Amino acid sequence: MFTLLQTDPQSKARRGRLETRHGVIETPIFMPVGTQGSVKAVSPNELREVGAQIILGNTYHLFVRPGMQVMRHFGGLHRFMAWDGPILTDSGGFQVFSLAKLRKITEEGVHFQNHLDGAPCFLGPREAMEIQATLGSDICMLFDECPPYPCEHASAAESLARTLRWAARCQEVETPGLKFGIVQGSSYSDLRRESAEALVALGFDGYAVGGVSVGEPEPEMMKAVEASEPWLPADKPRYAMGLGTPPQMVEMVARGIDMFDCVLPTRLARNGTAFTARGTISLKNAPFIFDQGPIEEGCTCAACRQFTRGYLRHLVKSEEILGLRLISLHNLHFYLSLMTRIRQAIEAGTFAEFRREFVAGYRHDAPQSVTSL
Amino acid sequence: MFTLLQTDPQSKARRGRLETRHGVIETPIFMPVGTQGSVKAVSPNELREVGAQIILGNTYHLFVRPGMQVMRHFGGLHRFMAWDGPILTDSGGFQVFSLAKLRKITEEGVHFQNHLDGAPCFLGPREAMEIQATLGSDICMLFDECPPYPCEHASAAESLARTLRWAARCQEVETPGLKFGIVQGSSYSDLRRESAEALVALGFDGYAVGGVSVGEPEPEMMKAVEASEPWLPADKPRYAMGLGTPPQMVEMVARGIDMFDCVLPTRLARNGTAFTARGTISLKNAPFIFDQGPIEEGCTCAACRQFTRGYLRHLVKSEEILGLRLISLHNLHFYLSLMTRIRQAIEAGTFAEFRREFVAGYRHDAPQSVTSL
Repeated sequence: MFTLLQTDPQSKARRGRLETRHGVIETPIFMPVGTQGSVKAVSPNELREVGAQIILGNTYHLFVRPGMQVMRHFGGLHRFMAWDGPILTDSGGFQVFSLAKLRKITEEGVHFQNHLDGAPCFLGPREAMEIQATLGSDICMLFDECPPYPCEHASAAESLARTLRWAARCQEVETPGLKFGIVQGSSYSDLRRESAEALVALGFDGYAVGGVSVGEPEPEMMKAVEASEPWLPADKPRYAMGLGTPPQMVEMVARGIDMFDCVLPTRLARNGTAFTARGTISLKNAPFIFDQGPIEEGCTCAACRQFTRGYLRHLVKSEEILGLRLISLHNLHFYLSLMTRIRQAIEAGTFAEFRREFVAGYRHDAPQSVTSL
Repeated sequence: MFTLLQTDPQSKARRGRLETRHGVIETPIFMPVGTQGSVKAVSPNELREVGAQIILGNTYHLFVRPGMQVMRHFGGLHRFMAWDGPILTDSGGFQVFSLAKLRKITEEGVHFQNHLDGAPCFLGPREAMEIQATLGSDICMLFDECPPYPCEHASAAESLARTLRWAARCQEVETPGLKFGIVQGSSYSDLRRESAEALVALGFDGYAVGGVSVGEPEPEMMKAVEASEPWLPADKPRYAMGLGTPPQMVEMVARGIDMFDCVLPTRLARNGTAFTARGTISLKNAPFIFDQGPIEEGCTCAACRQFTRGYLRHLVKSEEILGLRLISLHNLHFYLSLMTRIRQAIEAGTFAEFRREFVAGYRHDAPQSVTSL
């Protein structure tokens, strides 16, 4: 289902193709995040216009609301949200540990109170996979425990052991879509290797690096990926979960990663921040008041084709929804175009040059860091 | 510039055509409200898709933010917001009296503190017309005083006298667009007549009925229009300001009104309320959880073509922006389609029948009333 088309001679960058039940995905790829069954402020038609090949849905959120009775009634997430392209669903593990309250972890899974009304809920490996089957997910993520950062070696090892036992249980549940294992192990290279090797021994359709973008410094994030990747098979896709900034993604591609997801493009847009090749700009800033140029010169997105920075600044300052809509579109277009350029550079054998120039041109100011959010 | 094409034999309904610098408007027409230079949550392309022929902008809001220096720099409102169709601008009179603080009214105009940062501002007849000229408005409204409801006869008469003196001053200011006078006079038929006759004596391109939809009961609203209309010339367009519900607009058309504007379609959408031929429905309501039908059966809007009530309910309950976007589109489409049907009925000589059936079929529940907002 995954075809490795080309590898970069100067880095671990890969050009690949992943076939799913709802279509083919050209990798490396960025996946817009549609947590609650909607990529925030963006319609399915607009997702197609900005070139989204696959989007994310979230098991935890959809399980809590609208609930599985509704999802079953509507025949799954694709029909519910009117998106007929591929969908990857998070397993809910990360959210149970970051959003829910009063957790109690057992060998069977996690008892918790949901973040909406505090109702008692339970999610375990079996439940998470069954939910993803009900959602009709094209790529189901295994139910894992995501330890916080920092984490002692002993706790990380204990957590990893449980995650691996859960992985075996997840494997037993039949799902219509592909199944991706999630490498954990916190900041510890020995645990990352152990995790990767154990998952590969079980055998999944793809492998994710989890427990990154959870508050650790960027070098730690890179290290976690570098410690996991060598133990993953070349003929399966690799997915770095929940990141990142544009240069982080370029660097991750150079380290052998094929897939990304991140809320940054839409979340920063709602705060008036737009991505450009030279870094982020805050359209709230006074210098844009009289600016008649687009967000980024040469950009072909719907926002840049029609609207000026001056107008967008006015919309953001006036808290008009159209402002965050247009910046969301631009930011998603930026992320997806970056992936297109990465794929073209790998194909043309110019990825090393592209990587050097892109990363050097991108200003690293505070708002560009995932971890500062 | 206004051509009266046809009149209904059984009512005062009129089919007309108004030429402006940015295009022709077929009347009766509804004008979506873009107070701050954006019809809330809707893009200019979407406005064209739902069939908007003309939109509103607001002098007071745009004067306060982004301010006239910005509007001049961008060459007016059309270019600023990327809308190349006709724009009608309110004069700011209504907002000065409803939004601003610490007003002091003089013969020259109104000193006030704006609602954003309390900065001292001044708007008078000359300033209001000059601002509308800067905005490049296709239809400029005269600067008037809008008395509250209820209002004593003596106060209403005094206010009206000033509004008429201001009308003469407004007339002196050259504007690129058409100029519409505003009939005031509160609930008093004698004042309404006096106002209409005085404005017609001055001679404007069209006439509005103001001081309606300001909290008065619906019969009072109808009475105010009925008391104004007979004194207005047949060969000029008539505009009832700030209303209304769908049946109110049908009834107003029957009373000789050609143009409407109202925030209801977009404001109610942001609360999850959608318009249908049988009245409004709140998509928050539980019965819609499993509903696989569109908002309204047979509706051709972008929301109804693609999305179910069940999904829209989920979006509204989850406070997803896509929900209010889609309902805003549906509601604007509903208002604009209603006007299309009214125009067709007048042309076909079936307006009386259409009026009877539409008004009878529309449920008058609480949330449908403008005044209950």
